[in-house]
Amino acid sequence: MPVVDIHTHVYPPAYHALLSSRSQVPYILQSPETPGQDRLVILPAEDTASTSRGRPIGPEYYDINEKLRFMDAHGIDISVISLANPWLDWLPPSEAASTARLINDDVNATCAQHKGRLFAFGTLPLSGTAEEIVAEVERLGGMDYMRGVIIGTSGLGQGLDDPALDPVWEALQKTQQVVFLHPHYGLPTSLYGPRASEYGHVLPLALGFPLETTIAVTRMLLSGVWDRWQDIKVLIAHSGGTLPFLAGRIESCIEHDGHLKEAGKIEGRRKVWDILKRSVYLDAVIYHDIGLEAAIKASGKERLLFGTDHPFFPPLDEKDGGEWLSVTLNSKAVKAALGSDEDAQKAIMGGNAVDILRLTV
Amino acid sequence: MPVVDIHTHVYPPAYHALLSSRSQVPYILQSPETPGQDRLVILPAEDTASTSRGRPIGPEYYDINEKLRFMDAHGIDISVISLANPWLDWLPPSEAASTARLINDDVNATCAQHKGRLFAFGTLPLSGTAEEIVAEVERLGGMDYMRGVIIGTSGLGQGLDDPALDPVWEALQKTQQVVFLHPHYGLPTSLYGPRASEYGHVLPLALGFPLETTIAVTRMLLSGVWDRWQDIKVLIAHSGGTLPFLAGRIESCIEHDGHLKEAGKIEGRRKVWDILKRSVYLDAVIYHDIGLEAAIKASGKERLLFGTDHPFFPPLDEKDGGEWLSVTLNSKAVKAALGSDEDAQKAIMGGNAVDILRLTV
Repeated sequence: MPVVDIHTHVYPPAYHALLSSRSQVPYILQSPETPGQDRLVILPAEDTASTSRGRPIGPEYYDINEKLRFMDAHGIDISVISLANPWLDWLPPSEAASTARLINDDVNATCAQHKGRLFAFGTLPLSGTAEEIVAEVERLGGMDYMRGVIIGTSGLGQGLDDPALDPVWEALQKTQQVVFLHPHYGLPTSLYGPRASEYGHVLPLALGFPLETTIAVTRMLLSGVWDRWQDIKVLIAHSGGTLPFLAGRIESCIEHDGHLKEAGKIEGRRKVWDILKRSVYLDAVIYHDIGLEAAIKASGKERLLFGTDHPFFPPLDEKDGGEWLSVTLNSKAVKAALGSDEDAQKAIMGGNAVDILRLTV
Repeated sequence: MPVVDIHTHVYPPAYHALLSSRSQVPYILQSPETPGQDRLVILPAEDTASTSRGRPIGPEYYDINEKLRFMDAHGIDISVISLANPWLDWLPPSEAASTARLINDDVNATCAQHKGRLFAFGTLPLSGTAEEIVAEVERLGGMDYMRGVIIGTSGLGQGLDDPALDPVWEALQKTQQVVFLHPHYGLPTSLYGPRASEYGHVLPLALGFPLETTIAVTRMLLSGVWDRWQDIKVLIAHSGGTLPFLAGRIESCIEHDGHLKEAGKIEGRRKVWDILKRSVYLDAVIYHDIGLEAAIKASGKERLLFGTDHPFFPPLDEKDGGEWLSVTLNSKAVKAALGSDEDAQKAIMGGNAVDILRLTV
């Protein structure tokens, strides 16, 4: 049974060039003061303090050979690569469709060069029109190595509960492409208080990301997206944000909401538990077995998929070739959560991904 | 073994009068158009749409006999009552200390009238000076029925990671009073998008509350509060917000943060797992066994305490005297999470609270 990493990002050369040409978030900072030490700044919260602006960016982000070396070092047989945030959300609308085609063709060609080892989630031109997005969804459906799409929480700019996205959900359901839902925007930095700059990137990364995801999925739930497209398949990053833990509270708050009751929205809806078990997949990128066990109980061991978040979270100390702590935390969590059920361990480490994403050449 | 409810709120008459005299959040809306149907508006997010402004407020909020009837109907032997949010955070500083004394004396006297059935968490004059707060902490330590204090996440206005709170933590540790940490402020409504008004109160209550709590606790962690006061005892509302689920990610983000490493803040600190097991108690107000099991695994079955959140989340349909769904969801979760371990069930339903809060008269 192969080991498959379904949460692993790239900035292909064309995208790297785009970011390098910019001077506001998202951008790659090439400082004359630190030659050869480019820094990637993708979050507004990272762009405030010179000591912690962004993170170092090297070939591991854009040279696919670095990805393959990382896979070899960690026993990963197959990677399903995806463009890292912030994708193309920020592009001028007139450039969206053509850029998405360029990037997706580039990524697909890279996968073709490493047949059997690489598949990909495509990128959508979300700043373009719904027609352009749908066209790219359909085009991706015919590409050899594409197995779905990665999207953020912004949609067309108004969130994933925006009715203007209806044609996109329709196309995604029709083509049965897995939607890898991934955070990017986090939460307003004001929530982190006046001492946030002392805390490095911990608050936006550890909390902003999963909390953003949870809000996005719950807005989809409340707007009826999951009722109207019962056959969409959504892979939620970071084991669902916090959805498995909060699902009970979400359900209780709905059942006790007088406004929803008056609007006739409580009866007949799909419950979050049904969505977790029938419409959602969760990655196993949660770094501990306690959270992972909750995710498995919520969605079932056949719906969890191992991931690494490479090339993010590199070790601070170790040299190239060593094992990454961020990877071993996740693989150990799978072992710890499933005890002696080795079949289930293998399924989460790769078998589920092979089945769900049809990872055969 | 008694059944104890440690998450149950009151607006004593003196506090009810205060809110009724106001016309901005927090306030009680007495509309001439709906006589006898006062509405309680405590969240800014609830104050925007006339159809869902606040919630009905009746005697269950301020008449202690309603609390006792509720306890009898649900087999609750002892309640540890606390002022509901937003407590006294919003008071003009000059009125804070005297109002806190008034409210705390009132609540303590109510407990004395129902000896053995009622204990309480006191309220702090957080808009006052640190000296006034410390004085009230010490005064509460000598009151017969007070067993700790309830606080929100704002602190003196700058969050719980504010160094200006140091004397308060010191006093709380010295007097060994349990700090019931409870959310109120939620998240900015902009995060809920342009269609939030269609979703009733679900997003601020189901997500805003626990996410606010998680951010507050993590800020305490990153600022070293838990390192400097290793013997404070903090009871975190709603099973820790989302802390048990996200603890692994928080730890991983800290271990991978270059800024924290350079600042020498990674080594020697207490890990979140240690804090969850030695400094924290969690209520069992999470409405499902999946989340509750994660909470139990994170903190231990001897640190979980049953609660109801009464009088919030009343049934939408049932008449007085019936069982509240919000209560049975929580008691069923305790049974489901602990399977056949009846001793642990009884401990969470009451025994732990008796031990930890010394609930004897």
